[in-house]
Amino acid sequence: MRARRRQRAAVLVGCLAVVAGSGSAPGIGTAEDGADRILGAAISSSHAYETLAHLTDRIGPRLSGSANLERAVAWTAEQLRGYGLDRVWTEKVMVPHWVRGVETGRIVSPVEHPLVLTALGMSEPTPLEGVTAEVVEVTGFEELRALGDRARGKIVLFNRPIVPNGGEERGYGSAAGLRYRGASEAAKQGAVGMLIRSLGTASYRLPHTGGMAYEEGAPRIPAAAVSAEDAELIHRLLAAGEAVRVSYVLGCRTLPDAESANVLAEIRGREKPEEIVLIGAHLDSWDVGTGALDDGAGVAMVMETMRLVRALGLAPRRTIRAVLFTNEENGLRGGRAYAEAHRSELDRHVAAIECDGGAARPLGFGVSAGEGGVEIVRRVASRLEVLGAGEVKAGGGGADIGPLAEARVPLLSVRQDGTRYFDYHHTIADTLDKVDPKELALNVAALGVLAWSLAEMPETLPRLEPKTEVRSFQAAPVKPPQVAPRPPGS
Amino acid sequence: MRARRRQRAAVLVGCLAVVAGSGSAPGIGTAEDGADRILGAAISSSHAYETLAHLTDRIGPRLSGSANLERAVAWTAEQLRGYGLDRVWTEKVMVPHWVRGVETGRIVSPVEHPLVLTALGMSEPTPLEGVTAEVVEVTGFEELRALGDRARGKIVLFNRPIVPNGGEERGYGSAAGLRYRGASEAAKQGAVGMLIRSLGTASYRLPHTGGMAYEEGAPRIPAAAVSAEDAELIHRLLAAGEAVRVSYVLGCRTLPDAESANVLAEIRGREKPEEIVLIGAHLDSWDVGTGALDDGAGVAMVMETMRLVRALGLAPRRTIRAVLFTNEENGLRGGRAYAEAHRSELDRHVAAIECDGGAARPLGFGVSAGEGGVEIVRRVASRLEVLGAGEVKAGGGGADIGPLAEARVPLLSVRQDGTRYFDYHHTIADTLDKVDPKELALNVAALGVLAWSLAEMPETLPRLEPKTEVRSFQAAPVKPPQVAPRPPGS
Repeated sequence: MRARRRQRAAVLVGCLAVVAGSGSAPGIGTAEDGADRILGAAISSSHAYETLAHLTDRIGPRLSGSANLERAVAWTAEQLRGYGLDRVWTEKVMVPHWVRGVETGRIVSPVEHPLVLTALGMSEPTPLEGVTAEVVEVTGFEELRALGDRARGKIVLFNRPIVPNGGEERGYGSAAGLRYRGASEAAKQGAVGMLIRSLGTASYRLPHTGGMAYEEGAPRIPAAAVSAEDAELIHRLLAAGEAVRVSYVLGCRTLPDAESANVLAEIRGREKPEEIVLIGAHLDSWDVGTGALDDGAGVAMVMETMRLVRALGLAPRRTIRAVLFTNEENGLRGGRAYAEAHRSELDRHVAAIECDGGAARPLGFGVSAGEGGVEIVRRVASRLEVLGAGEVKAGGGGADIGPLAEARVPLLSVRQDGTRYFDYHHTIADTLDKVDPKELALNVAALGVLAWSLAEMPETLPRLEPKTEVRSFQAAPVKPPQVAPRPPGS
Repeated sequence: MRARRRQRAAVLVGCLAVVAGSGSAPGIGTAEDGADRILGAAISSSHAYETLAHLTDRIGPRLSGSANLERAVAWTAEQLRGYGLDRVWTEKVMVPHWVRGVETGRIVSPVEHPLVLTALGMSEPTPLEGVTAEVVEVTGFEELRALGDRARGKIVLFNRPIVPNGGEERGYGSAAGLRYRGASEAAKQGAVGMLIRSLGTASYRLPHTGGMAYEEGAPRIPAAAVSAEDAELIHRLLAAGEAVRVSYVLGCRTLPDAESANVLAEIRGREKPEEIVLIGAHLDSWDVGTGALDDGAGVAMVMETMRLVRALGLAPRRTIRAVLFTNEENGLRGGRAYAEAHRSELDRHVAAIECDGGAARPLGFGVSAGEGGVEIVRRVASRLEVLGAGEVKAGGGGADIGPLAEARVPLLSVRQDGTRYFDYHHTIADTLDKVDPKELALNVAALGVLAWSLAEMPETLPRLEPKTEVRSFQAAPVKPPQVAPRPPGS
């Protein structure tokens, strides 16, 4: 990791900078010209990495309700102000305040083993003495329902492995619903506890936390993720015909909602300031790790794009608005609050781009828009082909900008190579060293080119058809829909 | 992991079994014939994996002094007796009894961060309130000495990254001495605590424990390994010119020595029963993980070789003796006790083979013997070439059989692909799922062919030259020499 860092400066100004020139003449006003200048500046700067380093090393994890998240709100706003943008402001959002406590677990019989586990975000705690019961294992909701009464009094283990780039069948998306709704589904069949095999693609005995919610009316049983290894061990013991008893203790708590904020910044459009291209990422992270991939990288990309456009003296036809959303991970309150507060101007949001797929090298973009939208973005992306980032797929968006679909805002995302994203996602290992400064710079280039082009080109993307089901091709799929907000506390 | 297991039966009897025939006629008595039969039987059986599964899943971690280790002594002896060998017995060994306790750490300033750390085996505890001090970072003993008085009152962090297959310059061996002797070297310069970057080759925020010892007369300061990520974070903060204060608490303790045992088993030679080919592995493991790679795999290989030779009705010219050593990890008392107890017959040990490099696919053997020894083993190994396991290198042995060098016993080891070994070594992630049953079967084949051939061939290997410095090419290098045993407790 250290060698990589030492090479950074040399590489950033080196091998790729040749792309920057690509025949464009100096000047302001044409989409192509501005895009080339952003591209060149992005790949020859390490500023985004420095932003990310501050966010992760100097502030740290940023869970909703934490002092760190509010430090991040203040620091990012201050930084954005330093860029000399037209307007920087915050919009207050009340967010859930869930805190992790002690968390321990073990297999009690047929043989004692410690379990490596971590509470799912928003889980209720166990009683002080923990939950102890026999385990029943299922791979999904169908198998759970087939258990009928045999889940009663048991701990249900959702044990569904996922693989890198596994798509809807075998990827993250195939199991995220189990994590999100599994506790209530199990509770409705009488289960007293819910465990899930971590939604991860590496095997280093790491538990992966993540969001969950309880269904109105179902008993609120405590929910935790165990490491892949522990899920496999339980599976082997069960497969041998053993009754497997597990005990676990979770000391997490939900406190009264806390005050947080979305951070917003604008470069006002020179011709059509009322038309807005939104670029967004989320400022909050899980409390484990330092949220470098999820979503510090996205925050750094968004901030750096704003800085570059202004520093280059570029004046886009339309307004570019950055939004650093709060509380994506365990509530989506930031995304919802934005849609609500800006309802009157959503029909003038000509595009919203979310960056929430890590910092691995960019592959291109995902686009959810009306007919012909993908083709327009393909033309924009063509100048990124040399970088391997020119591939545009139908389907784009992100959790925070999801609520804008109702107003038919075209939704886009920067798509990264997701092969290793879920090795680290939502774990203590999501730290700065997982980000390659060169790859982060390429992502800034991709976002910058897209944002600038959508803000500058004469036409706008066709709006979403009414009631479009938005699917995202980014590495981190759109989080499953949240149930109606509940009063905090137990 | 599950898919792999499901394919096991099919694969073991499938694609590789074709090698087994290799033109040998049935019969007993020639070295080649027996070797071919062992080879064929080894790669068509999953029995070694079943042994390993019991040791790891049903017994668990096996640290010296633990009830689990003594369960493993009893169970392996019972299994070996079930194989119908000529003699199975145990030899009592008193072992250190060190136990891990609470272990927590954090960066206190310039910014709060939790540290992921684990005590080094045999470390003294910290005071209850922990050790809190500024950190000084070095990459080795030279830099430490250059600090002079600047280490006084500080916590010394040995921050030396290692890489897979990095050899003496950049591999495990390049840093193991820092872990082993670092606390005393730092203490002699006035340090109050010692931390070391984990000796590991992956970055999943895992701390790697391992052995250490205190030097007579030096202050006994508490020693722990931090994860690679945490070492990098401290490095970045220091590199920015910050004073970095760290606090950590270790609750480990050293109790009075406990009774354990080496487990021995023999197939007596038909012509020269007094000549012994020793095959060994160590039964103990660290308390973290379940010791699947280190060294459950070696134990399974040794036991399976004994089972196969007997089950095939093969009668070797010389005696094959299996030794499952106790206490390799934190004392080497088993290896020393064996050499001491068998001193009178060491000149009739014609070879000793250690298996302590994991279970990845075998590459061949390492050989420490007198002139011409490597060539003899090359001839033996030639029948493993089709399996990719025919490469013989000078330099072989292992920690447990190291004490036999003084009696000039030729020392050998089975060499595995070590690329990923140190991803998991000495961590909670050293669990059964890291072992591929097919690769373990290939290792049994390699060990079986070598042991049988050395026991059966007319000649014996030339003995070590007096005072040979034995170097090992196995993935896990010979542990650094231990200081003189000290009375337990603080």
